[in-house]
Amino acid sequence: MTDFAATKAMFYLPEGLIYLDGNSLGPLPKAAPERVNQMLRDEWGEMLITGWNNAGWFAKPMTVGDRVGRLIGAEAGHVVMGETLSIKVYQALAAALAMRPDRRVILSDNGNFPTDLYMAEGLIKTLGQGHELRIVSPDEVEANITNEVAVLMLTEADYRTGRLHDMAALTRKAHAVGAVTVWDLAHTAGAVPVDVAGANADFAVGCTYKYLNGGPGAPAFIYVAPRHANTMEPALSGWQGHTSPFAFDLEYRATTGAERLRIGTPPVIQLAALETAMDIWDMVDMTDVRQKSIELTELFIAEVESACPMLDLVSPRESAKRSSQVSFRFSEGYAAMQAVIARGLIGDYREPGIMRFGFAPLFIDEDDVRAAANIIADVINNDLWDRDDYKVRATVT
Amino acid sequence: MTDFAATKAMFYLPEGLIYLDGNSLGPLPKAAPERVNQMLRDEWGEMLITGWNNAGWFAKPMTVGDRVGRLIGAEAGHVVMGETLSIKVYQALAAALAMRPDRRVILSDNGNFPTDLYMAEGLIKTLGQGHELRIVSPDEVEANITNEVAVLMLTEADYRTGRLHDMAALTRKAHAVGAVTVWDLAHTAGAVPVDVAGANADFAVGCTYKYLNGGPGAPAFIYVAPRHANTMEPALSGWQGHTSPFAFDLEYRATTGAERLRIGTPPVIQLAALETAMDIWDMVDMTDVRQKSIELTELFIAEVESACPMLDLVSPRESAKRSSQVSFRFSEGYAAMQAVIARGLIGDYREPGIMRFGFAPLFIDEDDVRAAANIIADVINNDLWDRDDYKVRATVT
Repeated sequence: MTDFAATKAMFYLPEGLIYLDGNSLGPLPKAAPERVNQMLRDEWGEMLITGWNNAGWFAKPMTVGDRVGRLIGAEAGHVVMGETLSIKVYQALAAALAMRPDRRVILSDNGNFPTDLYMAEGLIKTLGQGHELRIVSPDEVEANITNEVAVLMLTEADYRTGRLHDMAALTRKAHAVGAVTVWDLAHTAGAVPVDVAGANADFAVGCTYKYLNGGPGAPAFIYVAPRHANTMEPALSGWQGHTSPFAFDLEYRATTGAERLRIGTPPVIQLAALETAMDIWDMVDMTDVRQKSIELTELFIAEVESACPMLDLVSPRESAKRSSQVSFRFSEGYAAMQAVIARGLIGDYREPGIMRFGFAPLFIDEDDVRAAANIIADVINNDLWDRDDYKVRATVT
Repeated sequence: MTDFAATKAMFYLPEGLIYLDGNSLGPLPKAAPERVNQMLRDEWGEMLITGWNNAGWFAKPMTVGDRVGRLIGAEAGHVVMGETLSIKVYQALAAALAMRPDRRVILSDNGNFPTDLYMAEGLIKTLGQGHELRIVSPDEVEANITNEVAVLMLTEADYRTGRLHDMAALTRKAHAVGAVTVWDLAHTAGAVPVDVAGANADFAVGCTYKYLNGGPGAPAFIYVAPRHANTMEPALSGWQGHTSPFAFDLEYRATTGAERLRIGTPPVIQLAALETAMDIWDMVDMTDVRQKSIELTELFIAEVESACPMLDLVSPRESAKRSSQVSFRFSEGYAAMQAVIARGLIGDYREPGIMRFGFAPLFIDEDDVRAAANIIADVINNDLWDRDDYKVRATVT
């Protein structure tokens, strides 16, 4: 059983703040400053260039990848860390499209995070082969998985509402019509149990600065299924994915397996910070996270709805269909969120009118949820209405 | 006049070590551990998500880019930091090729760093339009700049020998036949004065962990000439290059200017470390660096050649054609480099038989050069020859 009081004690949380924005940027592991400091002094400072071997820097994209991989149900050796999520989307999508040279449709939905769609647009333009990015609404996805589709590219949890797609079912349907799948786990890795191997996903990508608490600008990850790892063609064929990077051959020859998804020199200072978060994750069972997350989000929904009937729940009411966030729509959502933040509760605002709150059981407990609901109720029912110019007042705080 | 004693004092250099490998990984600025620690505690820890605005994280790719830009002669606002050099090569090359849709040749040379060639190969395969990567020897480049060439892609200084290409002259020739240029400055940024604007370069890319001392995995940079900044098409069209990233539109619209070369979330912890190096660079004039670098490399060549006639200089003898490194070829170069390293002199080895030494005036002075030459002479003339099995002995140290 995961000890969430123990995990909470391992994060630094500013006094008097309730942080329901770990789905944007997770908080600082208390061990990170000292660990990074030690990495800079003892590794960079003392080892200099030899750190690439002696401190294990060169291996980090794979060793850290395995630690992330455990949380998303990946086979060992099949998750690679590096760059940003946008780059990982491009890598996965390019490789997936190359597997279906006779098809031209990338199917996605309007609940996908925009950068995934933007990277697809850029790739389509670069390919110049008339691919189509077909964007449907989330509930139309299943019906649109036809044998025209080369790649089904979806984010498992909607960044605005937390609505979950059924990864296993949609992957099954995609495979039945011969499509390849690319799953973005940005809002599910560390939030809900993910099982990329069990779902038979082809590729998966994600970031580590949200629920995984790797810090601002923490590197992204990419997963490739073992059945594709030796045959997929890396479009971003950098030297660190070469079979023999230090032979300095003039021609690229991809190394064996998932490691061919390495591109350039990994950001090992960022990775050192991320590792302190992974030390906390090593204490955690994702089944416990899910159970606690459901308790927290149910409590939050009940408290807010009873005190603020004018807020509309836009997250799925059924917990099985909801990730670890709760979003409400409110006509004055932007002003209300500013006022809530001024009262020491950090959530965030997303158009249109969406007040979004993330619940990370590693550092959020029932007391936080009750206190948060009280602040929201007070802002909505009192602060916002005590002056005629409330919008202006709330916006400038 | 740059005070190189002052800059040297700002780096941590392990006791008893002579570090002639700053061209692989620069040493630790003494201020870096404390600055990164403070960034983690006061920015990530205290500001959490608000750090993107309040600590200036979001702006860092451009603000740090300008500081790097000064060292390469770039116009303000035209250098963007992020990801890795391999990614930047892909970005620049894809944009450059898109400007010459009627041409199919990418001209490069076999002195280019392999990852540049690998990324070009991957892009060519992705494009699937029959582009050719034409690789000639460095001295054949000029004659091969014909009107077939879409893009001339070169690294200004050869990573093995330090041989310099004439960026201004080759760019002029390229433009005369209608080709676009992509210059890799990995071994010249911070090593020799670079003037991308004066040379009329179209694109330039580079890394910051070598002479710039940004630390292991430090982000790369990309430069685009102002005349292309508003018209170039980003192939890697991530959300941070969108005209309005927080509107979360479904369609990509590139922002104005060079900032469209942003892709995903920047590695702000790595950037904090790099900024401490840039604080040192702010004290430095590249003209002084060049003069000092020539003095150091001339002294080194003279000392080593007089003591070790069996070593062949493979770097250009004429200083104007040499960057800030000196390389010697030696049949037992690998064993010799291992023995030299065991004696506290760090250089590195590159096939075939090349012993490579980098001279960074910011932390290397004449005393270091004389001491280094003495160690090399002692290893070559004594250590290596005092036993029959010298190769084995030297290799295992």
